[in-house]
Amino acid sequence: MNFTELNLKRESCRAYIEKEVDREISTQIIKEALNAPSACNSQPWKFVLCDGEKANDFTKFIKREGSKINQWTDQVPCFIVLCETKAQLMASLNCNSQKYAQYDAGLAAATICYSARDKGLGTCIIGVFDEAGIKEYLSIPEDVKISLIITLGYPKHEEPRAKMRKDLDDVLSYNNW
Amino acid sequence: MNFTELNLKRESCRAYIEKEVDREISTQIIKEALNAPSACNSQPWKFVLCDGEKANDFTKFIKREGSKINQWTDQVPCFIVLCETKAQLMASLNCNSQKYAQYDAGLAAATICYSARDKGLGTCIIGVFDEAGIKEYLSIPEDVKISLIITLGYPKHEEPRAKMRKDLDDVLSYNNW
Repeated sequence: MNFTELNLKRESCRAYIEKEVDREISTQIIKEALNAPSACNSQPWKFVLCDGEKANDFTKFIKREGSKINQWTDQVPCFIVLCETKAQLMASLNCNSQKYAQYDAGLAAATICYSARDKGLGTCIIGVFDEAGIKEYLSIPEDVKISLIITLGYPKHEEPRAKMRKDLDDVLSYNNW
Repeated sequence: MNFTELNLKRESCRAYIEKEVDREISTQIIKEALNAPSACNSQPWKFVLCDGEKANDFTKFIKREGSKINQWTDQVPCFIVLCETKAQLMASLNCNSQKYAQYDAGLAAATICYSARDKGLGTCIIGVFDEAGIKEYLSIPEDVKISLIITLGYPKHEEPRAKMRKDLDDVLSYNNW
């Protein structure tokens, strides 16, 4: 599958079949995430993979009581917790070391989504969660920020939904705004 | 090329041959970027493509006087200026509308880098630039933030360099920090 096809197949997957993700596969996906670019190649990230029995109780940190948000996550066999770690930028940049860390997390997260889809897996990026609860559950240090959580599993539906996107003309221009 | 191969081939490319990028190709790359995921599918981005003669003078906004930073950009035939626009998140999230915009920019930027590489082009993400100068040069509104700039062109070297990355064991753990 070339990237144009992969790009169309990747979607935010919120329905999974009951099937574990082998550690060999989830680890390979993280290996590919490490090859993502980052500002000054600082790689300000650490990935904590939550799978097996530990994943069963993890959902309580991302479902919001009395809301529909993330209720579908009960079926997810594996979660990737993307943490922001201290970046070391070139001194000559003379800026806050974490200035680019969120861009870098996005670069790694996209890599995970494409890598997983290419291997037949689905992903969904989650930005709302009980950060303190997860830190305690996974022994993540107090001073580490959790950037994003990415679900990983085998999709229930093979064919992607139609994509709802802004019109190209509204978000692309040439040589002038 | 599958994604595992593409992931290894993508690198930050800082040497290009003298060859323009057809608008058909650069536009297709942006089309694929639009399919990137974003928080609440809010797509808080606009892409301004700077190519042709307009690209020649663009480099002055990214080269830093008296420094080696980005001096190689004279050869670049096309620049993609990734702008952050106002995001519309679900009201129930009850947070700053731009909270996820930098992650989203990273997701789009990674999509551009992989899409371009799959088509035989190279990219490099640039985070240091004269934002005010670029806004004036491309008539970008005052209240719009420029997130990142991505160079686009045909690589001088086909084979990627060896990747320098942190050890997997230092940045991946299972079910515990």
